[in-house]
Amino acid sequence: MKFDLQKSIEILERTPDTLATLLDGLSDDWLHNNEGKDTWSPYTIIGHLIHGEKTDWPVRAKIILSNSENKTFEPFDRFAQLNATTTSIQDLLDEFKSLRKKNLEYLTSLTLEDIDYIKKGIHPELGEANLKQLLSTWVVHDLGHIAQITRVMAKQYKEEVGPWKAYLGILKK
Amino acid sequence: MKFDLQKSIEILERTPDTLATLLDGLSDDWLHNNEGKDTWSPYTIIGHLIHGEKTDWPVRAKIILSNSENKTFEPFDRFAQLNATTTSIQDLLDEFKSLRKKNLEYLTSLTLEDIDYIKKGIHPELGEANLKQLLSTWVVHDLGHIAQITRVMAKQYKEEVGPWKAYLGILKK
Repeated sequence: MKFDLQKSIEILERTPDTLATLLDGLSDDWLHNNEGKDTWSPYTIIGHLIHGEKTDWPVRAKIILSNSENKTFEPFDRFAQLNATTTSIQDLLDEFKSLRKKNLEYLTSLTLEDIDYIKKGIHPELGEANLKQLLSTWVVHDLGHIAQITRVMAKQYKEEVGPWKAYLGILKK
Repeated sequence: MKFDLQKSIEILERTPDTLATLLDGLSDDWLHNNEGKDTWSPYTIIGHLIHGEKTDWPVRAKIILSNSENKTFEPFDRFAQLNATTTSIQDLLDEFKSLRKKNLEYLTSLTLEDIDYIKKGIHPELGEANLKQLLSTWVVHDLGHIAQITRVMAKQYKEEVGPWKAYLGILKK
């Protein structure tokens, strides 16, 4: 499947509501348990998604499309959310939804043309990357974290499933 | 985390709406592409979940709680949905939601007591399994298929993400 802006937005615009439907109102065990030392809970992952909306996706798109000489992205702090103060999951989900909405408004306001998608920035570790790749990564990043959240939750019942463990691939990841 | 009926229902009751929020209205590419030969698309997976509501979870719970001599479960056909006729994704999602609602009404109508959770049935391949394990597996099965759906979707952009592929664990699974 080739990159397509409209199809990418289909995913990006659904993620906040998907996560709110999955997580809002769950017991703390589901929200705050993780996969073990130095791993993330669903709550932590929402914090990470919020940080991405604030400092990564729109900021990097802006750098790529700018006329600046320096097109190197700032490194993305993948652990920023671990310092977050205690906020309710509802508030985090609302914040994510409102940031995503704003960022998608920005994205569509750009009225991108074919030539824009191959414009490049410099990733501090990965080197050259273009706008099409950045936007595709935004989509895959969303889907990857939904998968991660459900995996973390599934693992809370790892022992409870008894003999069915043999059939449940998600418990082995 | 120990099995808890109420916490299990928290997940089970959210799955249909989570999947509808994620999938309803998406382009066919997202709904019908898979991970390669003999793998499932998101559309196929919803068919599989529907088949489980009809023939697996409530039926097996009933066998476990019955006074019948024969407590062996019927084998679950994991490929039944591949023969399904063409139905819109909206109709499949609605059918799943309505079957799940009915099955959760049945589950709560049982007013289960501690002693019920350790009652056993016989799985045709795995041997003895009790009600607590069946219900835990129902939960993990839901979460596993949400993870699978998002992984299948993410992989459609496997090449589109360019250098970021190195960071996106979900593309390697």
